Amino acid sequence: MRIVAADTGGAVLDEKYNPVGLIATAAVLVEKPYRTATLSIVKYANPFNYDLGGRQAIRDEALLAVKLTRKVKPDVVHLDSTLGGIEIRKLDDVTIDALRISDRGKAVWHELRKDLQPLARRFWEDTGIEILAVGKESVSVRIAEIFSGLYSAKWALEYARENGKAIVGLPRYMKVEIRPGKIYGESLDPREGGLYGEIEAETEGIAWELYPNPLVRTFMVLEVWKE
Amino acid sequence: MRIVAADTGGAVLDEKYNPVGLIATAAVLVEKPYRTATLSIVKYANPFNYDLGGRQAIRDEALLAVKLTRKVKPDVVHLDSTLGGIEIRKLDDVTIDALRISDRGKAVWHELRKDLQPLARRFWEDTGIEILAVGKESVSVRIAEIFSGLYSAKWALEYARENGKAIVGLPRYMKVEIRPGKIYGESLDPREGGLYGEIEAETEGIAWELYPNPLVRTFMVLEVWKE
Amino acid sequence: MRIVAADTGGAVLDEKYNPVGLIATAAVLVEKPYRTATLSIVKYANPFNYDLGGRQAIRDEALLAVKLTRKVKPDVVHLDSTLGGIEIRKLDDVTIDALRISDRGKAVWHELRKDLQPLARRFWEDTGIEILAVGKESVSVRIAEIFSGLYSAKWALEYARENGKAIVGLPRYMKVEIRPGKIYGESLDPREGGLYGEIEAETEGIAWELYPNPLVRTFMVLEVWKE
Repeated sequence: MRIVAADTGGAVLDEKYNPVGLIATAAVLVEKPYRTATLSIVKYANPFNYDLGGRQAIRDEALLAVKLTRKVKPDVVHLDSTLGGIEIRKLDDVTIDALRISDRGKAVWHELRKDLQPLARRFWEDTGIEILAVGKESVSVRIAEIFSGLYSAKWALEYARENGKAIVGLPRYMKVEIRPGKIYGESLDPREGGLYGEIEAETEGIAWELYPNPLVRTFMVLEVWKE
Repeated sequence: MRIVAADTGGAVLDEKYNPVGLIATAAVLVEKPYRTATLSIVKYANPFNYDLGGRQAIRDEALLAVKLTRKVKPDVVHLDSTLGGIEIRKLDDVTIDALRISDRGKAVWHELRKDLQPLARRFWEDTGIEILAVGKESVSVRIAEIFSGLYSAKWALEYARENGKAIVGLPRYMKVEIRPGKIYGESLDPREGGLYGEIEAETEGIAWELYPNPLVRTFMVLEVWKE
Repeated sequence: MRIVAADTGGAVLDEKYNPVGLIATAAVLVEKPYRTATLSIVKYANPFNYDLGGRQAIRDEALLAVKLTRKVKPDVVHLDSTLGGIEIRKLDDVTIDALRISDRGKAVWHELRKDLQPLARRFWEDTGIEILAVGKESVSVRIAEIFSGLYSAKWALEYARENGKAIVGLPRYMKVEIRPGKIYGESLDPREGGLYGEIEAETEGIAWELYPNPLVRTFMVLEVWKE
């Protein structure tokens, strides 16, 4: 099975570890044995001007997933949204009202579906590929989350090189290591069976430290600074 | 403390990782230091003709636990059913209606108790041993679950030897390794403090691969095939 | 950021692993990189005469945290109570009624706030330091929990030296090791990013064993006895 998934993660933190905005949306192609991405692409947001309400993320994820999907032709697309695996192309207003989600979630989806439903329907008509709202139970969404953390670390390196320093909150229970010429990351949850990722990056002249976010258990902070 | 517990697990999967039916009910005797089973027995189901609604599993578990209990005389029996540790022999219709479980769960137990309550009552009168509906908070039920995974792997070896190939979904966050003459398995959750198991098996001429189930995070897939 | 946190944990268990009473309240000072305590103090309870309803623990924690805070002047104090990070000095009766907690929890806090609110208000007026009801999402509260486990192990050594034997239930998913002259402990959840602690203790002439509590998955039992 070949799966494309997308997720957004990594947050710029202020000195008191409060989130300022999200950094990176990653789309990944995941193939057997489903432990890492065969291919990944990224779209960076502007974390200093970010809608933390969540609508920006899911729209970015859908568009980036479609972009990667056109290229690699997977069997299915997984978006990080826990609607029980429903097909996005079927998300009309009646269906959204019948979902077992919060009223706030319904309002968000009534708004979102205006763009996403036609997109998913046309995409399905053209290619036969379904876009599903699956959420974190999908291993591929989790791998996309890990890659959003890797790209956030890459963003932090570049930001620190220009501005001296960056503090980034990584996605849930994952760590990164900055190695010569690349950034390696892996899940800290062994129950996931060894999920990991690696991307290339310019790593020279940068020092770094990784430690637990004192305000949010199971989340790590990456601090990088120009040496 | 000597505890007998039973659980059912391991599922035949189709090529798209959808479950077809459950494979093995295991009953185990667990003794201090409570990390593995001192003794285990198995009852195989027919995964290609299986009631996934859950009634078959709990009945098989109760009967197999009683069988092992008659032999090893434990202090108590744990069944995998989260009814708060209630004694099965006390499960009359009034008590079931008062449980804080779903209406669907109540309907299942009204049906189940017709066999199980008299069984548990007679068993308690004969032996003084209680059968409790405890659920996953019991370490012994978790060890039974790990053994159901081991026996499912054994079933997969035999099935592959006859039919060429088998794909099995293991119980939650556990892995197995096929070693010469035996199958070893352990929990992937280190919070459980090192739970594991091992059974003998005919392992020659079989190749295998273990990887994350892409559709269900924290569950592993075991694929075996004739070499 | 310098954080003081307090938590209560470690329970004397009877031979059937039922909790008799809690043992130790620990207050800790946690500083970057937030993996262990820079400083810790303890208040032992009498586990054989303990109110398991929870009111004793939170009061002991507040008082001990204040004691350590007067000494080390942290930026903030975290108490283990999941009220969403609210400031204790603002906990009047109207605010408590508006919290999204159980009626039982509200009753407890209506009683508790009589002492704790004036204490927190005066403390804040004197020092400017806030006492927050944060709960387990705080890494510092989790480190306090690990230290309460370490001090419970120390209590067990002393109790066993006098009375021959002790059985202690440790706080959730943590282990301890009794080493010459000290007790080391760490979280069993790798998602927490490597939380640990160490305290000095008189360890000679004592044997010990650590194993999973068979009745409560992810909790370990420490048994110690005089050699």
